Amino acid sequence: MGGIHMDLDTREGVFKQARAWVLEAGQEIRESMFKPMHIDTKSNPNDLVTTIDKETEIYFANKVKESYPTHLLFGEEGYGDDITSLDGIVWIVDPIDGTMNFVHQKRNFAISIGIYQDGVGEIGIIYDVMADVLYSAQKGEGAYKNDVKLKKLSENVLLEESIFAFNHNLLCESSDFDRNIIESLVNNIRGCRIIGAAALDIAHVAEGIFDGFISKGLSPWDVAGGTVILNEVDGITARNTGAKISMLDRGTVVACNKVLHEKVVENYLSRWENDS
Amino acid sequence: MGGIHMDLDTREGVFKQARAWVLEAGQEIRESMFKPMHIDTKSNPNDLVTTIDKETEIYFANKVKESYPTHLLFGEEGYGDDITSLDGIVWIVDPIDGTMNFVHQKRNFAISIGIYQDGVGEIGIIYDVMADVLYSAQKGEGAYKNDVKLKKLSENVLLEESIFAFNHNLLCESSDFDRNIIESLVNNIRGCRIIGAAALDIAHVAEGIFDGFISKGLSPWDVAGGTVILNEVDGITARNTGAKISMLDRGTVVACNKVLHEKVVENYLSRWENDS
Repeated sequence: MGGIHMDLDTREGVFKQARAWVLEAGQEIRESMFKPMHIDTKSNPNDLVTTIDKETEIYFANKVKESYPTHLLFGEEGYGDDITSLDGIVWIVDPIDGTMNFVHQKRNFAISIGIYQDGVGEIGIIYDVMADVLYSAQKGEGAYKNDVKLKKLSENVLLEESIFAFNHNLLCESSDFDRNIIESLVNNIRGCRIIGAAALDIAHVAEGIFDGFISKGLSPWDVAGGTVILNEVDGITARNTGAKISMLDRGTVVACNKVLHEKVVENYLSRWENDS
Repeated sequence: MGGIHMDLDTREGVFKQARAWVLEAGQEIRESMFKPMHIDTKSNPNDLVTTIDKETEIYFANKVKESYPTHLLFGEEGYGDDITSLDGIVWIVDPIDGTMNFVHQKRNFAISIGIYQDGVGEIGIIYDVMADVLYSAQKGEGAYKNDVKLKKLSENVLLEESIFAFNHNLLCESSDFDRNIIESLVNNIRGCRIIGAAALDIAHVAEGIFDGFISKGLSPWDVAGGTVILNEVDGITARNTGAKISMLDRGTVVACNKVLHEKVVENYLSRWENDS
C-alpha cells in the first residue's frame, strides 16, 4: 500500500479539490454542448459525446497526476492507470454517465467520481451537469445535495409501497435472466421509474425519490461515487445475490436501503440470473 | 353552442388569466407541502395529496365560474360541471397529475389544463410545480417552455434511434393487451424512460426529450393540456389505433411526432390491445 494514506484533514482537501474540478469540468461540458460547431445539424451527436467523454477523463487524469502523483485513477474511457488492485488511493471516474441521455436529451447525465482508499469508499461525487446539482459525501460525514444534508433512508418502508428504478428491458425475454422474477417484483411494488443514468438513479435512491435501483452489467465507475453517497444515508449497493461489490468487477447492482435490499434479494433477485 | 366564442384577443386574455391562476395554485401547493402539519411524520401523505387535489380543483372551478360564467369546467376530482358534450368553452383540469410522484417524491407532478372550444384545443398549460417550469401553448401560436419557444419536432427521427416513455407494466402479462408487441417495440427502439406523470411525460415529448409516450387508461384531463402543446410542435396525441382522441372519453394514448406515430401504430400498437 506504499504508505499512501489519507487522514481526515488530507481527505477534506482532496474532497474540496475533486469537487472544484467536477464543477469546472461540468462548466466546460455545458459550454462545449452549445458551441456553434456542435449545434451544426450535420455534426453527429455521438461524435460530440465521445469527444467530451474523452476530454473530461483526460482532464481528471492530468489533474490528479499533477496534484496527487501517488494516487491512481481509472475510468470508462481508459485514459487513467491500468488497475489490478485497489491498494492505495484510487479515483474511479465516469466522465459522462448517461451517454444516451446526453445524446438524446442534452440533460440527465452526470460526472461521477468515487475515491477509494485500500478498497474503501472515502469520497463520492455525482454532478448532474445540466441541472447544476451536486451530490457528495465523505465516509462518516453524511451525504449532501448541494449544501443540504440528505436524511437517512427510512427503515419503515414497505416493499408494497416502494418505487424502483430499472430499465424496461429487464422485463423482456433474455437468456441471461428470468424475466418473470422482475414481473413478479413489479406486481408487488407501487411503481417503476427510470432516469437512465446509473449514477443519477442511485443519487435519487439516496435522496429517497426512488426506493431502489436495479441494473445489470454496471462497471465500477457507474457505482463508485453512488456507493459512498448511498452508504451515508444507510443505503447500500450490492450484487443481486447480496454479495459485496468489488470496484474491480463488472456486474449486476442493486442499490437501496438495507431493509428493502434484504427483501428483494431474498424473495426475488437471488434466483433471478441464470447460471451460464 | 350558445354564442360562446373566443376571438384571438379574448383567448389571449383567457390564456393570461389561466396561466396566472396556475402559477398561484402552484405557489399554494408548494406552501401546503411544507406546512408543519404536513411534515408531521404521523400524517398520511395520501391524505395530503387528496386534500390538495380537491382544494386546487375547487380553486379553479370557483375562479372560472366568477370570471367566465359561460365557460364550463371539468376535472379529475369532480368539482366542476357535469359535461356530456364539448360544445362551447370547456376547461379540462387535472389539479395534480402524477399523484404517486407527489406522495413518494414530492416532485415530478403537474397542474394540467386544456381549454377547448367546441371540442378544439385552444389553450394548453402544464406546470411542473416543484421545478417551477411552465409549458404552454395557444393553438396556432407555438408552444413555450417558460418564455422559450419550443422547436418543431424533427421529421427525420428514426424509430431505431428513438426514446419512448411508458410504464414498465406494459411489459407485464395482461389479459387486456399483448405484452409481446411492446417487447418487440422495446427491442427496436433505442431506449425507454418514464417520469410517471402523463402531462409531464407528454410535455417532454413536446420538448424532444422523449420521442414518444404510450399509456393505457388515460382520462381527458391527463391529455387535454398536453395535446394542445404537442400539436404546436407538430406532434400529435391519438389512440393506439390512430383514432382521434375525444376529450370526453377515457382510453389509450400515444403521443409523439407524426412520423413515429404512423410507424408505431402500423407496425405495433394497432394490434396491441385485445378485443374484449
